[in-house]
Amino acid sequence: MREFKILEIKQGVFDDNNKQADGLREDLKKRGTFLLNLMSSPGSGKTTTLVKTIRALKETVKIGVMEADIDSDVDAVTIGQEDVKVIQLHTGGMCHLDAEMTRQGLHGLGMDDLDLVILENVGNLVCPAEFDTGSSKNAMILSVPEGDDKPLKYPLMFSIVDVLLINKIDVLPYFDFDVDACIERAKKCNPNIKVILCSARNGEGIEEFADWIKTEVATWKKEQ
Amino acid sequence: MREFKILEIKQGVFDDNNKQADGLREDLKKRGTFLLNLMSSPGSGKTTTLVKTIRALKETVKIGVMEADIDSDVDAVTIGQEDVKVIQLHTGGMCHLDAEMTRQGLHGLGMDDLDLVILENVGNLVCPAEFDTGSSKNAMILSVPEGDDKPLKYPLMFSIVDVLLINKIDVLPYFDFDVDACIERAKKCNPNIKVILCSARNGEGIEEFADWIKTEVATWKKEQ
Repeated sequence: MREFKILEIKQGVFDDNNKQADGLREDLKKRGTFLLNLMSSPGSGKTTTLVKTIRALKETVKIGVMEADIDSDVDAVTIGQEDVKVIQLHTGGMCHLDAEMTRQGLHGLGMDDLDLVILENVGNLVCPAEFDTGSSKNAMILSVPEGDDKPLKYPLMFSIVDVLLINKIDVLPYFDFDVDACIERAKKCNPNIKVILCSARNGEGIEEFADWIKTEVATWKKEQ
Repeated sequence: MREFKILEIKQGVFDDNNKQADGLREDLKKRGTFLLNLMSSPGSGKTTTLVKTIRALKETVKIGVMEADIDSDVDAVTIGQEDVKVIQLHTGGMCHLDAEMTRQGLHGLGMDDLDLVILENVGNLVCPAEFDTGSSKNAMILSVPEGDDKPLKYPLMFSIVDVLLINKIDVLPYFDFDVDACIERAKKCNPNIKVILCSARNGEGIEEFADWIKTEVATWKKEQ
């Protein structure tokens, strides 16, 4: 397993998080490092999806992962098995990351040779939607057991993400989840949202997500 | 369906939320109204559990429900079908309720004749754990699809609740969820936590939860 650091990150002291986020995004573009901010509720399958996505990408893309959590390092331990660069960020009780916290994380991770850094944000559909981390793109996971009404209840989150992964579709037969209704509600929040149906458990849809990431990383580097 | 109000509640202006919470708890005790604060991740089944619990209680206990949400009124519409007093609280983007917001909600609901008010808090395992609402007792739901590692990742939430409902046990065969390991982890955060296995869908465990509430309401009134 890869060794990893645990970093206690502090909330940004800057009034204007949007300005900090734009600055970070610009710095990342100059380096040619693409930052993907991955958000979801607790337990929607972020870490398992990440593991499968890393396996689909790591031959062609140099990847680093930042695991943000209130406490614990269980996710960094899991990701460390995949032999990619990983750091555990402890938010000290904070329910989200801002751009300055993300910058501290990137500094701790070190990104000299990385094409892609994936930030697994704190499990929360509310606060992370309100803070631009400086990411190149945002993705979210909604899992089938959570219900198809979530775009109605957390519209801001659905409005700020580029990709929505509807995960755990292998258990669709056991839940009352209307895929079409969910997509329609998500598109009402965000007409440009890309939707991928997937199952991190059986691998369905992971290739499509990995391909989307590859294209985005290539475009980011081209614009460098 | 019962008509319900939608109330926009404002964050408390008080420095000391704990003091406000203690004050509210005292006021509620004087009235003999028991306030239960119900918390969980988005999609763990709070509203469905509430519906079934209300049906088990409403012949013997006078119930009011406060549905807190960032936006939308889907949950109040659902609870309104059960012919209990209900109010939808909009938190204006806030990810939790503090004691002052809870007091605004109770004032909007009106509680002259109520034995029990249930607050369905915002779907979030982080922030609601940090703010005492003034509730008599706290309960949380963790659903099987979220995973048995959640007490490791959100220890504060597990440490402040009196009851943990492990919900959606009807889908246990389709998920890798170790009930014993989960309970052991929860008890490490909180040795006194009461754990109830339930399925809001098929009704298992609801009677046990309703009985616990009945006993707590009776004790609360006795201490009045």
